[in-house]
Amino acid sequence: MVERSLAVVALSGGMDSCVTAAIAAQGNRLALLHVTYGQRTARRERRAFEEIAGFYGVPAERRLIAEMGYLGRIGGSSLTDRGLEVNLAGQAGMPAPPAGIPISYVPFRNTQILSIGVSWAEVIGAESVWIGAVEQDSSGYPDCRREYFEAFRRVAELGTRPETRIRIETPVIGMSKAEIVREGLRLGAPLHLTWSCYVGEERACGRCDSCVLRLRGFEGAGVRDPIEYAGG
Amino acid sequence: MVERSLAVVALSGGMDSCVTAAIAAQGNRLALLHVTYGQRTARRERRAFEEIAGFYGVPAERRLIAEMGYLGRIGGSSLTDRGLEVNLAGQAGMPAPPAGIPISYVPFRNTQILSIGVSWAEVIGAESVWIGAVEQDSSGYPDCRREYFEAFRRVAELGTRPETRIRIETPVIGMSKAEIVREGLRLGAPLHLTWSCYVGEERACGRCDSCVLRLRGFEGAGVRDPIEYAGG
Repeated sequence: MVERSLAVVALSGGMDSCVTAAIAAQGNRLALLHVTYGQRTARRERRAFEEIAGFYGVPAERRLIAEMGYLGRIGGSSLTDRGLEVNLAGQAGMPAPPAGIPISYVPFRNTQILSIGVSWAEVIGAESVWIGAVEQDSSGYPDCRREYFEAFRRVAELGTRPETRIRIETPVIGMSKAEIVREGLRLGAPLHLTWSCYVGEERACGRCDSCVLRLRGFEGAGVRDPIEYAGG
Repeated sequence: MVERSLAVVALSGGMDSCVTAAIAAQGNRLALLHVTYGQRTARRERRAFEEIAGFYGVPAERRLIAEMGYLGRIGGSSLTDRGLEVNLAGQAGMPAPPAGIPISYVPFRNTQILSIGVSWAEVIGAESVWIGAVEQDSSGYPDCRREYFEAFRRVAELGTRPETRIRIETPVIGMSKAEIVREGLRLGAPLHLTWSCYVGEERACGRCDSCVLRLRGFEGAGVRDPIEYAGG
């Protein structure tokens, strides 16, 4: 029996990265990378990460937690800088989020996640690095676009050993949130273990940008979100 | 008086990055980034960083220490993995280092350093990120080559806000170690505060790859290295 190849998947604990892991798991053994950077809900996301890793039977030596506390010190994002408010898109009386780049944008974060993924992949001999970036509806983030990933592929090719071939995979990049939910259900992904809320850690708030997008996704897919919401 | 623009410089504390900072300081205010990743001589390098920052009068809020302890857990390099021996190029009876990529190579490290630099630059409004990579003599590292930096420039352009323009500067990339020493002397760079040794923390060993390259550089420039060496 040929051993399946190893895939490094960046797993935040959210829905997009969970479905990305489910897709990667179809033909690969998983190695899961989780990044913490002083975001508000770091502990809850870590729990989601560990539970999803457990669901897929990924052993401890193939789980890597990368603490990037310096991103919190760099600041500039509502996810790490406690002086900035998280957007509450659905809250009555709140102004609409400003057009353009969301305030939850952590500058250039995906490059850091991908580059840790590529380092690890090179050392453990993984053939691919997967990330659950979504161009369409989670975004306005410059580092979620296809052309950005094209450019990063070239960096990964040139910045690693000549014999190293690491593919950068973004399987959900073209999907809507509803399509991601449907794909997750089709593959039996543990969506009940995922965490998307930017605000709550006990129950999801249902009102932040991330909750609103997630709930619309389940609505679009015609199924009920299995996680609990505050006041729900 | 027009305020000079802000330049983020990756400053390891070694000679190449110190001379890079000296070049950047000609037309810019400096913001200094220091990365630690569990390398053997982390403490000594940190001291060199702080002393060079002090020499250039860089205030605390423009010094950023990024702890990337996960690189040590990733391993794969003699600089972080204590199971691998550092090459002692000049030591009697030691085999020559293997051809090709040096064992001190930390996979894809420059991408991580640059991406932290770009994140920070975007937040503080710096116009450039500088790194003291040297193609010719410190290398065989895939992520020290010009074409690698060309590819990274494209990632920085596409992965940041549309209005952000951050130049990636590699002013010593084409220099030999002797040219770097001469350029440092010409600009009054504090070479006496730098640290290059991969092994020692009290006195430089004079025998590891990094010491040997440094000493050859001073020899080529016809001047005496101002730091102390073990047994010297």
